[in-house]
Amino acid sequence: MTAQTSLRLALAQVNPTVGAVAENAALISDWITRAREEGAQLVLFPELCLPGYPAEDLYLKRHFLQANADALSELAAAAEGIAALVGFAEPRPSPAGVHPFDAPTPRAAHNALALLRDGQVEHVYRKQRLPNYAVFDEQRYFEPGNEPSVIGIAEARIGLTICEDVWEPGPPASIEAEWGADLILCPSASPYYRGKRADREAMFARRAREYGTAFAFCNLVGGQDELVFDGASFAMDRSGEVVARAGQFDEELLVVDFGAGSGPVAEPFGELEEVYGALVLGLRDYVRKNGFDRVLVAVSGGIDSALVALVAADALGGESMTGVVMPSPHSGAATQDDARQIVRNLGADLVEIPIEAAMGAYDAALDGSIDGGATGLAAENLQARIRGNLMMALSNAHGWLVLTTGNKSEMSVGYATLYGDMAGGFAVIKDVPKTLVYELVRHRNSVSPTPLVPPSVIERPPSAELRPDQLDSDSLPSYDVLDQILAAYVEGDQSRDEIVAAGADPAVVDEVLRMVDRSEYKRRQAPPGIRITARAFGRDRRLPITNRFGG
Amino acid sequence: MTAQTSLRLALAQVNPTVGAVAENAALISDWITRAREEGAQLVLFPELCLPGYPAEDLYLKRHFLQANADALSELAAAAEGIAALVGFAEPRPSPAGVHPFDAPTPRAAHNALALLRDGQVEHVYRKQRLPNYAVFDEQRYFEPGNEPSVIGIAEARIGLTICEDVWEPGPPASIEAEWGADLILCPSASPYYRGKRADREAMFARRAREYGTAFAFCNLVGGQDELVFDGASFAMDRSGEVVARAGQFDEELLVVDFGAGSGPVAEPFGELEEVYGALVLGLRDYVRKNGFDRVLVAVSGGIDSALVALVAADALGGESMTGVVMPSPHSGAATQDDARQIVRNLGADLVEIPIEAAMGAYDAALDGSIDGGATGLAAENLQARIRGNLMMALSNAHGWLVLTTGNKSEMSVGYATLYGDMAGGFAVIKDVPKTLVYELVRHRNSVSPTPLVPPSVIERPPSAELRPDQLDSDSLPSYDVLDQILAAYVEGDQSRDEIVAAGADPAVVDEVLRMVDRSEYKRRQAPPGIRITARAFGRDRRLPITNRFGG
Repeated sequence: MTAQTSLRLALAQVNPTVGAVAENAALISDWITRAREEGAQLVLFPELCLPGYPAEDLYLKRHFLQANADALSELAAAAEGIAALVGFAEPRPSPAGVHPFDAPTPRAAHNALALLRDGQVEHVYRKQRLPNYAVFDEQRYFEPGNEPSVIGIAEARIGLTICEDVWEPGPPASIEAEWGADLILCPSASPYYRGKRADREAMFARRAREYGTAFAFCNLVGGQDELVFDGASFAMDRSGEVVARAGQFDEELLVVDFGAGSGPVAEPFGELEEVYGALVLGLRDYVRKNGFDRVLVAVSGGIDSALVALVAADALGGESMTGVVMPSPHSGAATQDDARQIVRNLGADLVEIPIEAAMGAYDAALDGSIDGGATGLAAENLQARIRGNLMMALSNAHGWLVLTTGNKSEMSVGYATLYGDMAGGFAVIKDVPKTLVYELVRHRNSVSPTPLVPPSVIERPPSAELRPDQLDSDSLPSYDVLDQILAAYVEGDQSRDEIVAAGADPAVVDEVLRMVDRSEYKRRQAPPGIRITARAFGRDRRLPITNRFGG
Repeated sequence: MTAQTSLRLALAQVNPTVGAVAENAALISDWITRAREEGAQLVLFPELCLPGYPAEDLYLKRHFLQANADALSELAAAAEGIAALVGFAEPRPSPAGVHPFDAPTPRAAHNALALLRDGQVEHVYRKQRLPNYAVFDEQRYFEPGNEPSVIGIAEARIGLTICEDVWEPGPPASIEAEWGADLILCPSASPYYRGKRADREAMFARRAREYGTAFAFCNLVGGQDELVFDGASFAMDRSGEVVARAGQFDEELLVVDFGAGSGPVAEPFGELEEVYGALVLGLRDYVRKNGFDRVLVAVSGGIDSALVALVAADALGGESMTGVVMPSPHSGAATQDDARQIVRNLGADLVEIPIEAAMGAYDAALDGSIDGGATGLAAENLQARIRGNLMMALSNAHGWLVLTTGNKSEMSVGYATLYGDMAGGFAVIKDVPKTLVYELVRHRNSVSPTPLVPPSVIERPPSAELRPDQLDSDSLPSYDVLDQILAAYVEGDQSRDEIVAAGADPAVVDEVLRMVDRSEYKRRQAPPGIRITARAFGRDRRLPITNRFGG
């Protein structure tokens, strides 16, 4: 944008809810009003903020598309005294009376951006590049557009794009720059992973310098099942410098005076603070958007459940959590004391339910059906499943949401009990490797006046406490070693040979890869959890259960 | 194909395993030999039969792609005295040293068909139309090709396509016909649903008449997680008449003498026989390909577990099944007798484990934590979860696979207990509506010398028997009504208003749709099961859990 052009632009970093078209329209309407009150000439909303993102197969339902189109028309009527750009799913005409096998089957909608001005839908821009990798399935839902758009607002010539459109060089942004755009807008629904904010700003800076245009990026904020949208919207001048930046993990109206070249510039979070913030927002929104008002956490005195309890207390308030302590004959007294201490420190309710009697009832029931009764893995899993049943009984009796406490290292190698500690509605830390679990607990303790998690929880060697003197290290390599191999295999898609060539012990690599491959059936039945890495299990890494390829 | 052209073509309807590249190559090599021994000049294998289909994110792993390319080269060396067309994933060169955000990101492979002749890979055809709807995600994995191919074998001019390429009119088949192809080959990985075979033949008949060419369709056969490939390969003359057809649900080498215009024409299965065959093959392959040798079924005396037990006995032999009967104080004596009778009729092992003592242990444990103890839903779910735990303990102790018994009607409305009767590795009938469950049991009884399922199982009103005198009809509409609404909503994507306009009771529709929408979290944690309809839960219907759109 040339220095002489002047435009007051508002970036509306909002948190809509998937499917809640009427509520989202009301939210957008409120923020249009706020932006007008701030003197903005144009307010930009994120990609698909009216229907919500990702709405998955809702985008295939014609009546859902119609509901969002109707809501857009109503919003347009209210857009007076300010221009607004609103992301919506634009329905396309159905082919009528054509046999499904005798015509191309176009998608039912465009991923689109509507310019609302003077009570009208004045213009529609349609996304051209539809990501269909990683967590994205947009070619399942949307027909690509093919027309670049440059619109005039006040004195500014403004190019329109949507998210992925600018992640690769070339059209539409390159054409819009040739057509004289001095500012290019990029409304997005760009999900979080560690380091994504810096990746985005670096990419936009290259585009700004290539095209000699300013850029503004307006991102969704909020949690949606596995995904967290981190916000961190920004405006950037043509040299690639960030001239205004919104905060992360919260709604914000970022007002930028282009020409004057300034707005507030929020300091980005530190690395651990950022991951922690993603977990808090992801959990809070899952709970809130699904209508729960209380969560249950099985607090064992171990580090994983400690982190989940911390995140829950920060997301919902300790008073909205019940910590459940379920001792068995294998539970250490010090571990149990730590569990109670954590629950008390967080101001949560404490419930204690010993499981020994139930263990005895199962032993008796199975005595005739398993030679020598349930021992080994069967006996260990039974303890975890008794606890899972008790958690679910509390959930069923009270309508509370059970949070599970497994970390990514465990989920990778299957070191968890299906229907046991994996039983619950939301797996808060399933994408957090064990080594990062420690860092996050230390970080959270460090920013608290007094440590919320006793140091003994951090220092005690990890154990599932399902048999006497059990340690995780009996079954697994050290977590430092394990997490390195997992990062290479799961996140890096490296082969066994590549990992070994990089210096890992071949026998350990073989065993870890075998465990990862054989645990796919467990992961399929795991609850959803928050993605914080560039390759999470779930919608991001899709492997068959029936799979004979090793490594 | 003109009458004077003569070609002996073999369609190799084989059952490879996803990821098992070396084993699949050996299978293909054997069948090339068989086809040569039958005097065939050309043998056609299904789409992607070398790496397996769908291999999902394995197709993103460069070392997996390389393994399948290496295996293809070895196969080529063995192809002497016959030409072979083999489906494989052709690796594409990686962009080297390019920043991921600064270049288009092409897929790593083509979905391809290699012509092996005289010890060489003589030609490669690349699929042009990549389905990305329903259960298909091919635009995630493959770069489309853009060149039609006509090859010469003996006197025949043969056009090449792959599956979806011919499901819409136009290129590449239309161009290949213009170029003089008199036979167009269509290797496929076309998954089963009810009625798919007839749909396929009707579609191909239209193409044959449009282009004036003969067609040959060679399909995979076998189960892969949720999908069953039904085979039913065929050859069709230019008038659209089927001149040779392979059987369904089994491997077969179908040899066709074009010119002479004939081959064996298998009679298609009847409607119920076909669904039943899909269930048997889907289960058999899940068990076999995942290395299990025995299954566990909780046989209740109800119709659903009866069907699962029937399918398991037909898939694996009754001697490879253990039927588990787990009475509670709410179990009816006649129901229990029926359960035992079914297990005996099928020649399976019978294990009985009463659950009353475990129920008492949970009541005691929860007495202090739930006011008045676990009652209502919590108590009912506890019974189902005790049974789930017992099944999993037997599974853990012996390494056997637990089959779950829920049908599609229950999975739709959430009338099942997570971690209870939903606990297990494979959900055999999860895509079979309750009304079809009855039809299938009656059908299977009718083709047996004596009924395997006692008539009382079919006649007794459905009940979960989790409280005294409980009936499914206390909580649900009649299954006739329910299944009609579900077909419209789940399979037809109709709106609430459309379903009501078609004559359904508005209050019932509202309640059913609410139950379906609110049960998404349960379905996410369900084991995979066999798709038999055109819209199954799982990879075929992808809705968010956090979703405020109703209807």
